Amino acid sequence: MAYSHTIKKLIEFSETDMAGIVHFSNFFRYMEMAEHSFLRSLGLSVHYNEAGQCNGWARVHAECDYWSPLHFEEEVEIQLFVREIRHKTINYFYVFQKLDTEGATIVATGTIIAVSVVINRQDNSIRGQEVPTNFKDVINICPSEYYQKYLKKR
Amino acid sequence: MAYSHTIKKLIEFSETDMAGIVHFSNFFRYMEMAEHSFLRSLGLSVHYNEAGQCNGWARVHAECDYWSPLHFEEEVEIQLFVREIRHKTINYFYVFQKLDTEGATIVATGTIIAVSVVINRQDNSIRGQEVPTNFKDVINICPSEYYQKYLKKR
Amino acid sequence: MAYSHTIKKLIEFSETDMAGIVHFSNFFRYMEMAEHSFLRSLGLSVHYNEAGQCNGWARVHAECDYWSPLHFEEEVEIQLFVREIRHKTINYFYVFQKLDTEGATIVATGTIIAVSVVINRQDNSIRGQEVPTNFKDVINICPSEYYQKYLKKR
Amino acid sequence: MAYSHTIKKLIEFSETDMAGIVHFSNFFRYMEMAEHSFLRSLGLSVHYNEAGQCNGWARVHAECDYWSPLHFEEEVEIQLFVREIRHKTINYFYVFQKLDTEGATIVATGTIIAVSVVINRQDNSIRGQEVPTNFKDVINICPSEYYQKYLKKR
Repeated sequence: MAYSHTIKKLIEFSETDMAGIVHFSNFFRYMEMAEHSFLRSLGLSVHYNEAGQCNGWARVHAECDYWSPLHFEEEVEIQLFVREIRHKTINYFYVFQKLDTEGATIVATGTIIAVSVVINRQDNSIRGQEVPTNFKDVINICPSEYYQKYLKKR
Repeated sequence: MAYSHTIKKLIEFSETDMAGIVHFSNFFRYMEMAEHSFLRSLGLSVHYNEAGQCNGWARVHAECDYWSPLHFEEEVEIQLFVREIRHKTINYFYVFQKLDTEGATIVATGTIIAVSVVINRQDNSIRGQEVPTNFKDVINICPSEYYQKYLKKR
Repeated sequence: MAYSHTIKKLIEFSETDMAGIVHFSNFFRYMEMAEHSFLRSLGLSVHYNEAGQCNGWARVHAECDYWSPLHFEEEVEIQLFVREIRHKTINYFYVFQKLDTEGATIVATGTIIAVSVVINRQDNSIRGQEVPTNFKDVINICPSEYYQKYLKKR
Repeated sequence: MAYSHTIKKLIEFSETDMAGIVHFSNFFRYMEMAEHSFLRSLGLSVHYNEAGQCNGWARVHAECDYWSPLHFEEEVEIQLFVREIRHKTINYFYVFQKLDTEGATIVATGTIIAVSVVINRQDNSIRGQEVPTNFKDVINICPSEYYQKYLKKR
């Protein structure tokens, strides 16, 4: 059973904008990278064929708070915590930190709520379904003491 | 004085993902497109040189709720409403709708909180500053009755 | 019968990079936008279901020469010319120009060779097929005198 | 002195499109990732302040030939070879290969010609300059026998 996961990401030039920092929309791609890496570490995937149908995880909510800018060639550590599992959804909380010789700087914190879905390949419509058993069997809820210190508010 | 703005956007192929729908991170780029179009309509820009320094609007918070998927070659209407203006920040609320012969479908709703900043071009660090006068002179707060019907919650 | 097409594109903030100009990879997305707009203008799409299968146009070659940088909030005109139609492929030539009060500046020129394909939805493998009749019926080869002045070389 | 470099890249979900494969424009971002990783391995960067000015490497030409599609969660190896060094430019040749138990599959081959530039931070204009000495001191031209087998043509 797993409830947290960490990846590292080096910032690429194409991810910066003319303000000289990472474009804010990329943080959502990074959160998703951590989620997919988490699933892979459990032998699962965010997109899979099973029982003759195409299944995936759509997003019902995403948010991010930005605390400090990220720059080209900086390395960021992204931690994922499973905050909640409901009938059809999983709620992931994320912490972005820059690690350097002076310690850790919190760059951003975020949330993604993913819903288990069946994808109709004819018209690309989607409908929600219960979190599959093979996901529930290996994903657990993270004790809140592991991430509550990062829940700072403006 | 302006407090709302509307743009239309046709979904491009490169904005879809293998699930056959628009990748969720693109909604944040679309919200930003509406914000920049709003500023341009007022003779302003999100990025400008003034008083010998480089100024912009960084993001401190961004969020999106997804209600219905968007597909390739669909057209979406994005409405922006100015929800709040504080000392250094502007809070924008967004509504995405698909318009077709059967009426309007709400696709997504979202929020971006932008902070007025000075960008240091030597090290690309940023620091907050008061909302400049020329922005405050033309941007107003939107009466909530114009958008509160879209504030639905899961 | 059509053999050329023109679109306009306003440069978005998220398309710039820390050098302050449009990231070079975006020119390929812009070329594709012009191609898809061309097909739509003919009642066609780059991605369609027909005869019980999923069909599309994959890329076998893409290239771009960059002559002058593009900046945020500049508008670029993109012209598409059909240079060649073969058994399975269409070769498109593109010209990017900035239009302002001083005249036109060539920003970039490029090529995409697209191949007609059938997509296997089980494993997302693709295989080439003959250019479909409904495409051949409405797409023609452009006389070279319309674009040869843009074929400058370094 | 170095003239070649190799990186590995895992394909992310956000890099796929509705055809179920990596969007072709991403190959240009991957080539650039390999170039920047090459420069970093030599203690250099694609974007640097020196002698009181902002310097970088713009692109004058980019091209890619696509031989086989890439899919989500596949790993690709990207090799860079320095094909030519001129007064102001470096010509890089790239080979993308999928490595699996059955051997290597060539996915794509490509070229980027990068020009050494000075960036004017006032108006984001750029002008070419000679390849700086500290780049010429450590980058060499790759013997063609190392990459000529990959120069297949359609």
